[in-house]
Amino acid sequence: MIFDIAAPDLALAPALQRKIDRKTKPLGALGRLEPLAQQIGLVQQSLSPALRQPHIVAFAGDHGAARAGVSAYPQDVTWQMVENFLAGGAAINVFCRQLEVGLSVIDAGVNHDFGARRGLVDAKIAPGTDNYLERPAMSAAQRDAALERGRDIAHTLADNGRRVVGFGEMGIGNTAAASLLTHCLVPGAALANVTGRGTGLDEAGVARKLDLLERALARGGRPADPLAALAEYGGFEIAMMAGAMLGAAEKRMLLLIDGFIVTSALLVAHAIAPAILPYCVFAHRSQEPGHRTQLAHLGAEPLMELDLRLGEGTGAALAWPLVQAAVNFLNEMASFESAGVSDKA
Amino acid sequence: MIFDIAAPDLALAPALQRKIDRKTKPLGALGRLEPLAQQIGLVQQSLSPALRQPHIVAFAGDHGAARAGVSAYPQDVTWQMVENFLAGGAAINVFCRQLEVGLSVIDAGVNHDFGARRGLVDAKIAPGTDNYLERPAMSAAQRDAALERGRDIAHTLADNGRRVVGFGEMGIGNTAAASLLTHCLVPGAALANVTGRGTGLDEAGVARKLDLLERALARGGRPADPLAALAEYGGFEIAMMAGAMLGAAEKRMLLLIDGFIVTSALLVAHAIAPAILPYCVFAHRSQEPGHRTQLAHLGAEPLMELDLRLGEGTGAALAWPLVQAAVNFLNEMASFESAGVSDKA
Repeated sequence: MIFDIAAPDLALAPALQRKIDRKTKPLGALGRLEPLAQQIGLVQQSLSPALRQPHIVAFAGDHGAARAGVSAYPQDVTWQMVENFLAGGAAINVFCRQLEVGLSVIDAGVNHDFGARRGLVDAKIAPGTDNYLERPAMSAAQRDAALERGRDIAHTLADNGRRVVGFGEMGIGNTAAASLLTHCLVPGAALANVTGRGTGLDEAGVARKLDLLERALARGGRPADPLAALAEYGGFEIAMMAGAMLGAAEKRMLLLIDGFIVTSALLVAHAIAPAILPYCVFAHRSQEPGHRTQLAHLGAEPLMELDLRLGEGTGAALAWPLVQAAVNFLNEMASFESAGVSDKA
Repeated sequence: MIFDIAAPDLALAPALQRKIDRKTKPLGALGRLEPLAQQIGLVQQSLSPALRQPHIVAFAGDHGAARAGVSAYPQDVTWQMVENFLAGGAAINVFCRQLEVGLSVIDAGVNHDFGARRGLVDAKIAPGTDNYLERPAMSAAQRDAALERGRDIAHTLADNGRRVVGFGEMGIGNTAAASLLTHCLVPGAALANVTGRGTGLDEAGVARKLDLLERALARGGRPADPLAALAEYGGFEIAMMAGAMLGAAEKRMLLLIDGFIVTSALLVAHAIAPAILPYCVFAHRSQEPGHRTQLAHLGAEPLMELDLRLGEGTGAALAWPLVQAAVNFLNEMASFESAGVSDKA
């Protein structure tokens, strides 16, 4: 699979900066919102970018290794939480309603038969990955199908006029998969430094999780190739999300990156196509320790640090008003000239 | 003047925490939003608090010392920016429109005759404070009139059904006044550590500002009494804002605290009535170095750090969606029981 991603042309940057600097405010006084406005202008190649309302895509999948005890919660919670998403009762539903953000839930590989359901996209590759303690989480064919399906989902959003896509996930055991992927794809990242409490393990639980992940690595190795690492450790929701990220960047959409698991999918996408990075806005820094490692590797500085560790795309949703504010000040604020305000002496 | 502020009754705290903990998420996974929900529940003494839309009050005033060169901008920018507010072209207008936040602009003491204007509250104490390099910025009578008028403004908002009030300001030279107030009201705060670039002074400009403020202190001293410090160094917008904060807390409103200058008004209000603190939400950490000192003194941890240094209430406005999210998750998220989701193993 070839993803056709070109980094934005930078020729417009000086004109964007001039527009930002003539707004009625001291130079740089809008802080982080100013480079964000610059970035969005470049992504859309416009001095007056328009975002419209964003759409969050939440990918759900199960992990064979969950039954070995890498999570504080039983595997059934994946499908139960998908039901909660469909009923509108999860945190991501609340925040999307508040912020007028669209939400799609994608069954990328949940171990449950939902039947046909309003609001749920059936993209199930298989009912959960295999247990990476025993064999690779997925075959190369499954991985490629997940990537391809993710790309299609992003292309459809773009074709429907969406210009901003946020990413979320649900999958009991997926912080463990994210830890393995981060260990594989970030040179020098020690497993112990990128393995955390996930949904709330205590110290003994983290030690047990770390022990299981070391056993997985003893079997599957530490592939630095993103496609190999993805097949080895999964999951389907991460693979499909990586494909969707790449597909969204192909369509020059703006990508809202959530926390640790979403960023593990971005590590995969970035290793496949580094030009994806200028399309990404990093929403928040998660409490999960490996997220800091991922962000440093990508040279990314997130907008918020709220000690969130929920996933679902909640951080991406909460960052949306800041993204919108960056575009709005660029488009709507008066300039010194238009407002008749004296500039600096 | 006696401000009648009672700290919220804490009896409801355990029931609020139980409600937060039964939501369909790992314990504590919503990070900073969880204690924020708890705080708002206590302020409103309700397990289902309701905020409605907030209102930002932006107080404008001029400073006699501005003509001595404490700012990078000429004094006329105060009234020109008030005109920009009234025309809807400033950053605070853009963010209030985006976030459906109300905005009132208060002329607390601008050196300009606006006439009767839609959207502008004429609460002018005098056309700018006196120059604190030569004499006290205001008389005791002016200070008390400003506090009283601020209280009335907050009470009117409360009487009109507002439950959340954000604070903003505009006044060329007011970071200098805020530095002096911070130096007076925070024990151990060295003037040099709480004096910054304001609207964008260079190093030589900061040195000159510091020299001027040291001369002001040589004349007026370092009163630790909040009312004495306020009269000595002003300004009218800070005094009126302090009165409005105290009035809002009397009415048990939630207060959104912006950056360095707004927090200098809160230092005054807090020294008068320490029980104001549980009503305050700290929106962001400003780039102005003295803001860190103020926040540490108040034991406050702001929600965001976006390197803003614009004032106007922009940080308060941008924090609003997070405050709303805290209340919405508390009111709208399903519980493990209501959603049929299995709890932690």
